[in-house]
Amino acid sequence: MQSPTTTIIITATIHNSNLTPNFPPKFPLNPLRLPQEFFNRRTTTSISMAAASSSSSSFSSSRFKVNSKMGNGDGFVTISEYAGKGGVDVGDDLVVLFSHLEYAFKRIAALVASPANSSLGRTSDAAQDIASDRDKPKPLDIVSNEIILSSLRNSGKVAVMASEEDDAPVWIADNAPFVVVTDPLDGSRNIDASIPTGTIFGIYNRLIELDSLPVEEKAMLNSLQSGSRLIAAGYVLYSSATIICTTFGSGSHAFTLDHSTGDFVLTHPNIKIPPRGQIYSVNDARYFDWPEGLRRYIDTIRQGKGKFPKKYSARYICSLVADLHRTLMYGGVAMNPRDHLRLVYEANPLSFVVEQAGGKGSDGKNRILSIQPVKLHQRLPLFLGSPDDIEELESYGDVQQTVNPGYDV
Amino acid sequence: MQSPTTTIIITATIHNSNLTPNFPPKFPLNPLRLPQEFFNRRTTTSISMAAASSSSSSFSSSRFKVNSKMGNGDGFVTISEYAGKGGVDVGDDLVVLFSHLEYAFKRIAALVASPANSSLGRTSDAAQDIASDRDKPKPLDIVSNEIILSSLRNSGKVAVMASEEDDAPVWIADNAPFVVVTDPLDGSRNIDASIPTGTIFGIYNRLIELDSLPVEEKAMLNSLQSGSRLIAAGYVLYSSATIICTTFGSGSHAFTLDHSTGDFVLTHPNIKIPPRGQIYSVNDARYFDWPEGLRRYIDTIRQGKGKFPKKYSARYICSLVADLHRTLMYGGVAMNPRDHLRLVYEANPLSFVVEQAGGKGSDGKNRILSIQPVKLHQRLPLFLGSPDDIEELESYGDVQQTVNPGYDV
Amino acid sequence: MQSPTTTIIITATIHNSNLTPNFPPKFPLNPLRLPQEFFNRRTTTSISMAAASSSSSSFSSSRFKVNSKMGNGDGFVTISEYAGKGGVDVGDDLVVLFSHLEYAFKRIAALVASPANSSLGRTSDAAQDIASDRDKPKPLDIVSNEIILSSLRNSGKVAVMASEEDDAPVWIADNAPFVVVTDPLDGSRNIDASIPTGTIFGIYNRLIELDSLPVEEKAMLNSLQSGSRLIAAGYVLYSSATIICTTFGSGSHAFTLDHSTGDFVLTHPNIKIPPRGQIYSVNDARYFDWPEGLRRYIDTIRQGKGKFPKKYSARYICSLVADLHRTLMYGGVAMNPRDHLRLVYEANPLSFVVEQAGGKGSDGKNRILSIQPVKLHQRLPLFLGSPDDIEELESYGDVQQTVNPGYDV
Amino acid sequence: MQSPTTTIIITATIHNSNLTPNFPPKFPLNPLRLPQEFFNRRTTTSISMAAASSSSSSFSSSRFKVNSKMGNGDGFVTISEYAGKGGVDVGDDLVVLFSHLEYAFKRIAALVASPANSSLGRTSDAAQDIASDRDKPKPLDIVSNEIILSSLRNSGKVAVMASEEDDAPVWIADNAPFVVVTDPLDGSRNIDASIPTGTIFGIYNRLIELDSLPVEEKAMLNSLQSGSRLIAAGYVLYSSATIICTTFGSGSHAFTLDHSTGDFVLTHPNIKIPPRGQIYSVNDARYFDWPEGLRRYIDTIRQGKGKFPKKYSARYICSLVADLHRTLMYGGVAMNPRDHLRLVYEANPLSFVVEQAGGKGSDGKNRILSIQPVKLHQRLPLFLGSPDDIEELESYGDVQQTVNPGYDV
Repeated sequence: MQSPTTTIIITATIHNSNLTPNFPPKFPLNPLRLPQEFFNRRTTTSISMAAASSSSSSFSSSRFKVNSKMGNGDGFVTISEYAGKGGVDVGDDLVVLFSHLEYAFKRIAALVASPANSSLGRTSDAAQDIASDRDKPKPLDIVSNEIILSSLRNSGKVAVMASEEDDAPVWIADNAPFVVVTDPLDGSRNIDASIPTGTIFGIYNRLIELDSLPVEEKAMLNSLQSGSRLIAAGYVLYSSATIICTTFGSGSHAFTLDHSTGDFVLTHPNIKIPPRGQIYSVNDARYFDWPEGLRRYIDTIRQGKGKFPKKYSARYICSLVADLHRTLMYGGVAMNPRDHLRLVYEANPLSFVVEQAGGKGSDGKNRILSIQPVKLHQRLPLFLGSPDDIEELESYGDVQQTVNPGYDV
Repeated sequence: MQSPTTTIIITATIHNSNLTPNFPPKFPLNPLRLPQEFFNRRTTTSISMAAASSSSSSFSSSRFKVNSKMGNGDGFVTISEYAGKGGVDVGDDLVVLFSHLEYAFKRIAALVASPANSSLGRTSDAAQDIASDRDKPKPLDIVSNEIILSSLRNSGKVAVMASEEDDAPVWIADNAPFVVVTDPLDGSRNIDASIPTGTIFGIYNRLIELDSLPVEEKAMLNSLQSGSRLIAAGYVLYSSATIICTTFGSGSHAFTLDHSTGDFVLTHPNIKIPPRGQIYSVNDARYFDWPEGLRRYIDTIRQGKGKFPKKYSARYICSLVADLHRTLMYGGVAMNPRDHLRLVYEANPLSFVVEQAGGKGSDGKNRILSIQPVKLHQRLPLFLGSPDDIEELESYGDVQQTVNPGYDV
Repeated sequence: MQSPTTTIIITATIHNSNLTPNFPPKFPLNPLRLPQEFFNRRTTTSISMAAASSSSSSFSSSRFKVNSKMGNGDGFVTISEYAGKGGVDVGDDLVVLFSHLEYAFKRIAALVASPANSSLGRTSDAAQDIASDRDKPKPLDIVSNEIILSSLRNSGKVAVMASEEDDAPVWIADNAPFVVVTDPLDGSRNIDASIPTGTIFGIYNRLIELDSLPVEEKAMLNSLQSGSRLIAAGYVLYSSATIICTTFGSGSHAFTLDHSTGDFVLTHPNIKIPPRGQIYSVNDARYFDWPEGLRRYIDTIRQGKGKFPKKYSARYICSLVADLHRTLMYGGVAMNPRDHLRLVYEANPLSFVVEQAGGKGSDGKNRILSIQPVKLHQRLPLFLGSPDDIEELESYGDVQQTVNPGYDV
Repeated sequence: MQSPTTTIIITATIHNSNLTPNFPPKFPLNPLRLPQEFFNRRTTTSISMAAASSSSSSFSSSRFKVNSKMGNGDGFVTISEYAGKGGVDVGDDLVVLFSHLEYAFKRIAALVASPANSSLGRTSDAAQDIASDRDKPKPLDIVSNEIILSSLRNSGKVAVMASEEDDAPVWIADNAPFVVVTDPLDGSRNIDASIPTGTIFGIYNRLIELDSLPVEEKAMLNSLQSGSRLIAAGYVLYSSATIICTTFGSGSHAFTLDHSTGDFVLTHPNIKIPPRGQIYSVNDARYFDWPEGLRRYIDTIRQGKGKFPKKYSARYICSLVADLHRTLMYGGVAMNPRDHLRLVYEANPLSFVVEQAGGKGSDGKNRILSIQPVKLHQRLPLFLGSPDDIEELESYGDVQQTVNPGYDV
């Protein structure tokens, strides 16, 4: 049934597309390796995306272009499309690895959304179990770790995985090209209340020069690479939407799970963190344990007396991924001033994403990505956010909390 | 959370259902009107629900019981089942209204999860639009209001709806039995960052004695009923899971959306808020605008010097529904000490839910449900949470913030 | 956030709505009890439905109308909305029962779509098991029966259920208003090949005059009511879409499952079967076992020598629900001339639907709905379809197959 | 199918995984290139898959294995996992192409399941439009073509696509490795009745020796490769489940869409068509237009007088993909004896799948895969199925229908 003329159902919707001025997402003006055809396609995309914006929860069908002979495609871009040969072309090895990671992330997302999970660890029924529960691993942490390991193993692309959940890195395959570091389910204390959690991941090349070392040794050394050598990194936010925000070294981009097909589609190309925000994110309850510099900084911005003469507002979800995602979108600074977060699989991947969005990642004194890891589970203070906010904060000098009395919650 | 030994999750749930001690949800010991057969059914449920807990994201098929002749049913209970004649039997009018409300909530949940929405209001692309954007209504507020109004209208069960989004209540149908008050999408500033939002709703009987008044007048007076007359209320949390927490006056119960069927199933029966928590939730950035009493209270619990000798921790998502849901699960107090939240469609419905879970809802001095509304959009400070925490907080006397400089964020 | 002016995102799409001429579905001109407001709403609906047609797989968001002050609702109508007080108002008892049935149907739909099920009964791997397998119940039949029984029980609205899967009717509740007859999963031999299956259901009022009889007796007599006393009936098609086609006695209407919310929405209001079709559906392999009359009829229409001078075409899915649904849409006749199908829970409910769509249901000689059932599992030949085709077929007289050699497949 | 005793499905699968003997799918004993570790993983899988079989519609969480240190993975295998380096390793180019194809297929599946689509082309409302409708392209054909073209284009892996919907092949990219032939939506006349449809696809290597030819010429010649040169082929069935059945040249395998994650998971590894079936699939209404040989064959097997002494049964969905899928599962023969089906994008890919499952594909005289295409839209008779059935059928000699009066339906 050849049809030389295809009816233009969609174009009519453009007439008022100016009513949603931020939509469709403008594609990066200057992506490093994006071929020209990609732009051409994007241009024609505006139309269908405007339509999508009005139809919302699934817009699959509104994306295809009008005439198959014209040679332009549709509007929404999956990660495979974005990263692949038709897009920025990061190489098939990495494209394939991502498709396996996405599968793992979708399985975790299904778990945290599940009614069964909602009941899993409820404390309200079970006051008597609290004491013993505290020592028990929260099951979804473990489960998420297994899911990610399984996907990495099945991908055939990963030599070693280092995870927050495992004492030592797991060697997977001798000749596979990549090293993956991950916190499989960050913020897992929030799970029982269905508050957002996240997955953090970073990807390195396997260091070929280490191949002849014993397995334990090369597993560890591959995992302890400097954050500046990350070739890709990102996080997954499990919230009202499921969002992968990732970088391959040329900008940070967010992709949102489209439940109608089960694919992540590009919704936030080339994220630019505002140079200044008006939100800080920290556990304010620790005020009395903070060092002098941090107290002064927070007191100053609360009162609108900092370099940006506005009263800052507080937010603290206590899920690093969620607090960071909000910070990327709205600006400001997300922090944990204690020696608490992990350099290898938390601070480094997130700093890479933040820097690629124009922000900064610091331990209060140094750029995170310049710190050489020496231990797999090495901890440090972490400050992520808008460049002007991070600089102002660092200027207070004494912002790393050294008091650590051991907190229950 | 390293876990060198991973537990055998699947086989364990099979042979040892006691390994997941909080699961299945224990049904209320003393639900006011729950018939005996309901319990019988629940007892037989344990097996299949334990199985479900390991299979998670959809457990539809594991629920039915073994012998159709035995007269017992399956494990998971939908809202219709819970509220209907086979359950606590709140009456068909209310059961039918809930099925329409659920439809509205699922439409909103689909919207906030949608990739199209994720891009809707992104500020990063559009720095130039920020000024004008601030005054613009966030579209999803409006859309959610339309969706709920449409469902109420189509239900045939609602005489009048009063919403945060409408200046005046909307009269719908003369002889319909109910009055619905609602904040259709609370926390909507969080939407662009996909941080959880929520819907709040309360249901009254229509006051027949007002039927002869002019429409505007009876619409308003029906909407200004005292919170103590609520016959049902609840909230919907749009987060990593979609959860309706509701009360019909005999306990608060939470139902989680099962995406495999599109139904909300009972996951948290008879929620009991811990009498004490260790978390407080407030915008700490306003510390310098707080009254003396509130500052002392927060300083005290931060340092573990209150009646509960533990250092409290801070959390502040800035979505009232999300902050409250966490508080119901984990205990503590969620508050906004300013004259900011709305009595009719925020404070009253949420206080009803909290009280039915054993908690308290206060404006800092008085029980919320005892305050007679005089204006539809009337504002007040709000403190919700664990009974011992609320009492301790009230004992500081001066906890309502009167300074209101106008905050940007 | 009151918003007096809401932007009209959708209307623009209308301009070319004439490109999809059959869409939106025209609402019945003459539904028996549909209130005028319903029509008003429908009129405004065209707009959003045209939009939906271009955006397809989920159109939730395109449905709400433009101005919440205007008092009109959205476009798509759920079963609850259609049947409820805001629609044709069949009474709360029936509305509530339907919401429980829908839950059961969605659980069955999730099962037949599931990868686990796809592998359940595959015969290809297991040639050695074929002999024993033949006698085993196909699990999904049983499972579907349990699911439906559970929903009926939990509804509190059903006194007795008679099912193809149970030897005798199951008494559920003494004072509940309804009797339900059902074939829980018709065409179950098709399941292993993922070919469409269906559920058939009929609803009667409980006969109060039988209340004092012994349980077994009143269960049976309530189930043996004449098809002419059905107050509602329908089928569910589990195919590429999941569709409920149902009648409450004023037209037959089909509702399609919208996976974005998990609700069935009205897509085929007031179905009218074409008076003539050009398709017949029968197991042609039985030709040599057919009676003379049927052979002549089929030979005649195959050659285009019948009253309708067109060559008929054959289709035979061997799922009664699927073959009937196609017949309702395209016209023609679906039949099983053998004494094979069941009067109570197959022939009667389907005949009611077909008649309400303007078609006919016959056993080859008599109108199905006029046959008084005498046994629960009573079998008979069944011919369903376009009125002119059924009449022509009946005119051949000898169309009931009496030879029954016992077929394997 | 009365079942007075209902088996304890859940507990049974727990303690006696042998109660579901066909499950989990046994992995091929002799897959050409499957590494040993793959088998190891499969063995450990049994437990969790048995569990999954009882929990059905989503089993994501029950799949991961017990100990991340043990080096074995989980039970269900996606297409990427199966085809990738961790599986049979067909090469990254092909793995990546498949991930793009899957996206296209999921978009089409979402469309055919959508309520909006269910209403698209209904004829019942629009008797007056029938005449003009017949000539109009059915929209979903076109839409599906656009979707697939878009995915191929974005994959960066496809040089040329030849489709049933396009007069000539579409040249996409000069140096891309593959040629794709496709019927984007087969059986599209069934769409309006939501009867199953399918997509057919075949993949060739681009012929480098043609690179210097003019575009039109090399596009055509690449598309006219012999079916024996196919490197992969398959079909997608859009029915109650969504299933991809595919071959890379070492067995045919089916993967079912898991809606909880949006991935296709291996449910039917190494499909073996029964050597004999008892079902034939043809449009029996054409009996009087058939040649003598075919009439005799069909009459013979209908009466159980063929080499297999059983009465054959008829099935005819009139969706080639659905009729073939049933034939692969149950055995027998699916045919269209007329010069009707297309060699390049229907007969060849399906024959490749059938042969890899141990069956045969014939035009009644010759093996399909040995026929050299000379025209893109070349038609021929097609007989697919069990080897013994196809051989018996061919032995009747005169089975190709040459009479072609032009049928309406």
